[in-house]
Amino acid sequence: MNVEKYLRKVGDEIWFTEFEKDNLKIDYRIKEVVYSETSPFQHILILDSYDYGPMLVLDGAIQTTTRDGYIYNEMITHVPLNIHPNPKNVLIIGGGDCGAAREVAKYPGIEKIDMVEIDEKVVEVSKKYLKEVSGNLSDPRVNFIFDDGSAYVKQKRDYLYDVIIVDSSDPVGPAVKLFETEFYQDLYNNLHEDGLMVCQSESPIYYPEMMVSIHRRLNNVFPIVKMYMATVPTYPAGFWTFTIGSKKYHEPNPEAFDKETKYVNKEIIKSCFSLPNFVKAQLNID
Amino acid sequence: MNVEKYLRKVGDEIWFTEFEKDNLKIDYRIKEVVYSETSPFQHILILDSYDYGPMLVLDGAIQTTTRDGYIYNEMITHVPLNIHPNPKNVLIIGGGDCGAAREVAKYPGIEKIDMVEIDEKVVEVSKKYLKEVSGNLSDPRVNFIFDDGSAYVKQKRDYLYDVIIVDSSDPVGPAVKLFETEFYQDLYNNLHEDGLMVCQSESPIYYPEMMVSIHRRLNNVFPIVKMYMATVPTYPAGFWTFTIGSKKYHEPNPEAFDKETKYVNKEIIKSCFSLPNFVKAQLNID
Repeated sequence: MNVEKYLRKVGDEIWFTEFEKDNLKIDYRIKEVVYSETSPFQHILILDSYDYGPMLVLDGAIQTTTRDGYIYNEMITHVPLNIHPNPKNVLIIGGGDCGAAREVAKYPGIEKIDMVEIDEKVVEVSKKYLKEVSGNLSDPRVNFIFDDGSAYVKQKRDYLYDVIIVDSSDPVGPAVKLFETEFYQDLYNNLHEDGLMVCQSESPIYYPEMMVSIHRRLNNVFPIVKMYMATVPTYPAGFWTFTIGSKKYHEPNPEAFDKETKYVNKEIIKSCFSLPNFVKAQLNID
Repeated sequence: MNVEKYLRKVGDEIWFTEFEKDNLKIDYRIKEVVYSETSPFQHILILDSYDYGPMLVLDGAIQTTTRDGYIYNEMITHVPLNIHPNPKNVLIIGGGDCGAAREVAKYPGIEKIDMVEIDEKVVEVSKKYLKEVSGNLSDPRVNFIFDDGSAYVKQKRDYLYDVIIVDSSDPVGPAVKLFETEFYQDLYNNLHEDGLMVCQSESPIYYPEMMVSIHRRLNNVFPIVKMYMATVPTYPAGFWTFTIGSKKYHEPNPEAFDKETKYVNKEIIKSCFSLPNFVKAQLNID
C-alpha cells in the first residue's frame, strides 16, 4: 500500500486525503501520524486529526473517528437490540475498533458477546490509541475471536445467536465476502428462530447499487427486511444506511430504551426508519 | 476574489476545492466551468461537476447542486408549509437559486410569493444554468424583489405574511445581517398573529456556536422555537439544521402532505424533529 498516495506534508502541515471513487477527495489536516503499519490484511493508520480527533484509517478509508464514531456505533447496535425483546447471545462480525462491542456491553441482560474480527492488529491499536471509541473494552462477556467472519459462520456450534451485528468495512479488500448471499444465509443459520441481524449497508448517494443489492440479497434470505438511516459526517456524503434482516421481530420499542448515549434516544429509534422518497425509489418500496 | 484559490487544473483535469474552516478541504472534479463572474455582492461560479452535476458556488462555498439541492429546498419549504394550516402570503428571503420558490409554488392555496434576493445575478444564472434546481420558475404568483432582505423587512407594508422562509447563505459576506436578533424581530413584525418563519441554521458539527446562537436569538423573539434536521451531502459534515420561529402553530400535520417530491414525505415531516442527544445537549433542551 502506497501510503504517500494519501498522506503528505505541505510545508509544516500534514494532510490526509480520502478518495471517494474518482471524482471526490476529502482532505483532513492532521496533527500527528500516530501509527502506520501494514498488517497481513490491510494498511492500518491511526491519525490525530484537527477536526475529528484521532481516527482509524484502513487502506486509505476512514473507519471511525473520536469525534463522530459514536453515531455509527450507537446506530448499528442499539436499534437491533431495541427490536429484539430479550437478546442474550450476540455476535459481532468485524467491528475491530471495539465501539460496537462497547455499546452492546451496556445491556446487562446480554450474557455473551462473541466478536469475530479478521485483523487482530486493528483491535490492538484501537484499544491503545482510540480509547474514546473502544472504551479500552475489558468486559468479561466479550469473547474475541480473530478469524474470517465468513468462515466463522460456516462452522457448526452448539449455540445460536439472538442478534448478529455485521460491522464491516466497505466491500473491497477483506470484507468482500461479508456482502454475499451465501454469507447472509450462514447468518440466518446461526440465528435463533426469533433472531435478527443488522449490517451497515452503504450510502444511497455514493454506493446506491451496493445498498440496493444488500437489500435485495437479504430479502432473498430473511422474511423481514428493514432499512434505517443516520448521518455519519466522515462517511461519503454523510448519508448512511443500515439494514436489518429478521426472522420474527420488526417493531422497535423506543419506550424501553434507557441507555446513556451521545446520539441515539427514543425519538431517534422511532424516526430512523423514515426513508426519503429517493431512497424508497432506489429500493423499489412504498 | 481569487478564483485560483479554489479552482485549478491538474493535468487534463479541473478540480474545485471547498475549504471548511482551516482543517478540511473537499475537492470536486469538474467537467466544465460554466460561468464565473464577480457581482457587486459576491463571486458567482456555476460548475458542472462529475458527482453532483451542475452546482452554484458563491464566494467559494457550494450553495446548491443538481444532485442534492432538492433535499435542502424541499426541507426548508414543505416543513413550515405543513405546519401552517392555510398559508396565503409567503416571503422568501435569499433563495437566489429559485429552488425554494419552486417548492412553495406547488401549493395552489398560496396567493403570493414575494422573493427578496440581494443579488439579481444569482437568480439570472440559476434560471439559465440550474434549471433542474430552479425549474426555470415562471409562476405568476412569484414576485421578484432585488433588495437587501434585512432592509426589506424594515419597511412598513399594507399586508403581512403567513410564512417567511430565510434561505440565506452562511453568516459571512452579504448574509451576516440575516442572523441577527434585530432581523428576527423584523420578521416577527412582518408576520400575521398566527405566522411562522424558518431559517437554515447551520451544522451542529462544523458551526455549533452559530446553530446555538440562532436558536437562542429566535427564542428571544418567538414564543415557539423548534429545530429540525436533514442530511445534505454537499454541506459540511452532511448534518444540517433548520429552525422554526412561530407565533402560534407548532405541530406538523404529516397526513395532509400530498406534494410530489424527491426527499420529503409524510414520515420525513414527522421524523425530522427528532434530534440526537448531542444536539439537544448543544441547545440545552430535553
